[in-house]
Amino acid sequence: MALDPYQSTPVVRVSTVIRNIGQLVTIAQQPIPGASGPLQVLERALLGVSQNRIVWLGQEGEGEPQFQTDTPGTDITVIDAREAVVTPGFVDSHTHLLFAGNRAEEFHMRRSGIGYGELLARGLGILTTMNATRAADEETLLTLARERLVSLNAYGTTTVEIKTGYGLSLEAEEVSLRLINKLNATSEIAQPATQKVRVVPTFLGAHSVPPEYRDRRAAYVDLVLHEMLPRFVGLARFCDVFCEREAFTYDESLRILTRAKELGYYLKLHADQLSPAGGARLAAELGAISADHLDHASDPDLEAMREAGVVATLLPGCSYTLRSPYPSARRFLDHGLHVALATDFNPGTSYCENMQMILGLAMSAMHMSLEEALTATTINGARALALQDEVGSLELGKQCDLIFWSIQDYREIGYHFGTNLVQSTFTQHT
Amino acid sequence: MALDPYQSTPVVRVSTVIRNIGQLVTIAQQPIPGASGPLQVLERALLGVSQNRIVWLGQEGEGEPQFQTDTPGTDITVIDAREAVVTPGFVDSHTHLLFAGNRAEEFHMRRSGIGYGELLARGLGILTTMNATRAADEETLLTLARERLVSLNAYGTTTVEIKTGYGLSLEAEEVSLRLINKLNATSEIAQPATQKVRVVPTFLGAHSVPPEYRDRRAAYVDLVLHEMLPRFVGLARFCDVFCEREAFTYDESLRILTRAKELGYYLKLHADQLSPAGGARLAAELGAISADHLDHASDPDLEAMREAGVVATLLPGCSYTLRSPYPSARRFLDHGLHVALATDFNPGTSYCENMQMILGLAMSAMHMSLEEALTATTINGARALALQDEVGSLELGKQCDLIFWSIQDYREIGYHFGTNLVQSTFTQHT
Ligand SMILES: [Zn+2]
Ligand SMILES: [Zn+2]
Repeated sequence: MALDPYQSTPVVRVSTVIRNIGQLVTIAQQPIPGASGPLQVLERALLGVSQNRIVWLGQEGEGEPQFQTDTPGTDITVIDAREAVVTPGFVDSHTHLLFAGNRAEEFHMRRSGIGYGELLARGLGILTTMNATRAADEETLLTLARERLVSLNAYGTTTVEIKTGYGLSLEAEEVSLRLINKLNATSEIAQPATQKVRVVPTFLGAHSVPPEYRDRRAAYVDLVLHEMLPRFVGLARFCDVFCEREAFTYDESLRILTRAKELGYYLKLHADQLSPAGGARLAAELGAISADHLDHASDPDLEAMREAGVVATLLPGCSYTLRSPYPSARRFLDHGLHVALATDFNPGTSYCENMQMILGLAMSAMHMSLEEALTATTINGARALALQDEVGSLELGKQCDLIFWSIQDYREIGYHFGTNLVQSTFTQHT
Repeated sequence: MALDPYQSTPVVRVSTVIRNIGQLVTIAQQPIPGASGPLQVLERALLGVSQNRIVWLGQEGEGEPQFQTDTPGTDITVIDAREAVVTPGFVDSHTHLLFAGNRAEEFHMRRSGIGYGELLARGLGILTTMNATRAADEETLLTLARERLVSLNAYGTTTVEIKTGYGLSLEAEEVSLRLINKLNATSEIAQPATQKVRVVPTFLGAHSVPPEYRDRRAAYVDLVLHEMLPRFVGLARFCDVFCEREAFTYDESLRILTRAKELGYYLKLHADQLSPAGGARLAAELGAISADHLDHASDPDLEAMREAGVVATLLPGCSYTLRSPYPSARRFLDHGLHVALATDFNPGTSYCENMQMILGLAMSAMHMSLEEALTATTINGARALALQDEVGSLELGKQCDLIFWSIQDYREIGYHFGTNLVQSTFTQHT
């Protein structure tokens, strides 16, 4: 007979115990005794933590084990949560936050009716950011990115994916990847300010064909295939491609992602955002971890994604910025897909690092329920990073990355909107 | 020949000089030399302040006067703005922020498809808040309200209107009015935490017919007319009525507001939110300062409002919460109306104290430009409170209530969204 992992254990070794949690919103994927509702909420809960792993969780006073220090000679740290609401930290699975410059001027030009084509002709659009990022020195890029990590963490994010794609040369993409790795909380040179955020690096060399290759795009695809991809193995967890009319075709995307898969990268796609370019279908065919945007994906595409276990990542910040229709979350949910929500933080179409804002837009404009939106911003964000066994829910064996909220009941999330309801986040990287 | 108020003056007496302002977004209603654009932006600006009045503003080093202290024996305080962007503080001209309890549970019930009628039948809706507010002691109500003032100020609001309307008895409405007056920054017992917010009290006894009067609503209207209104003269700047199918009819509203006007109150209306109940027309007929919501107002109503100088106050937080269509700002602007934006902060339909969120929704969902949205949240908010000569823009003679922003250019407002871009607010009440 298998051991019940939640059965009372006489002695549990911990470094930290978090007591007096008003509501522990576990979002657990395994049943938790005493928890209620689809999000598996425990009232009056406590957590035992060792090396940032959850080694115990349950209701206070009910079959509580004897906690002993996991480090002889050191006392257990006891944290009083003061009846706070606790949820997993947000997992923001899609950002482009390593860049210099901003495009506020372009934003207002677009709003005054100037089309994106005309902006590109004026040298604006993504080229602005590419030029500013290439021109910035490494310390400037790191400082800007760290400020953004501090900000997104203040709003509740504890795991964030960061894509390259503003370098678009062998050298500049490699610099971006090295910097993204430096930003990771667990890296040796992490700054105190950013020690609370896990960073997942994604290589997006196929973001846009850079101007040097405008008239020989095949040569740029070859550069990505034969030089960048093999060289960046180990520096990026994911390879992503912007499969779109204005970027890379279905066939180019197929070649790049097939090679990336052979080299051991997990796959992601920017798929069917502006036109039905085949990205969703390709994601299913190649077994990508997630396909993102998906505004123009067809029903058969969604079926294929579900069969292949591809996460559908929706990015309402783009609709907010571009004043375009929001993706229909209901359609993806009705197809039985795992839906993740992310900021798409980038200077062109979603200048937003706040996952609470994204969650709120999903609940208001995309008709998601609180349960769906919380699932989409935590465990499904983790699924979109192939990290669902590590983060995204509060369960035995997983990382103890969590949010202390300054509210009385988790149902205030999405109801009380516009202000930061996060008091602080907790995580202990070792 | 009239003196040019912006002409260089040899000596200006001040208590405070704010130097090194990167962009001073004055939103001035009179031409300012050297300022550019519809918002009259001054680059590299400085402000001279005496008794919180702006006594000098201009560009640094250009015809700068000699500043001398306005209080002999006291040095001038010099504030270095470090090139910050500065705008007027937000004027939130429509809130119901004095209440106890919240309605998160009801919010989620509504979202799961339960209609407002059924909620009322279950004793929920506005009655929940009325009961909780009546039951709360004064200190609890003050504490809750002060926390909200601190929060809204952190997001940039320096003037806020607060309505009664959850007491709905002579005694409870009077308690609410006294508390609202106590909350005012300039009141003698203001707490340090709330000293930065001006509070404008509005009497909204005609918010809903309370349950005690369910079968004799005429008696409640008489109570408002003959007891509350005369008794509260001097305690409230405005009288407001919820003129709506579910609340007070056109005729009831007419009687209450006519009497209020005779007694010296300025007038406001909750008009045509859920149905075309005649509120906008009534606002025009009575010369109300503002009519709010206006979802169902007709074109002739808007014409009449424009003729009568009634401000149109739009409340996108309600559309966000109720998932209903946003009011068409363009329609009001095209009619030549002054459009104000406010939070409508209340526990039922807009639990939001952040004017940046409201401004962002107006720019995204209501297609307002940045210039229109900034005007609507500052000087037009002031117009909606009949305070346009005091606050809402940064001009000679007006209050120096302002925001220091943590951005490089004011055009980042609305572009960088979801996070708090306000560094701090400044005001010196005397
Ligand atoms: Zn993206
Ligand atoms: Zn209201």
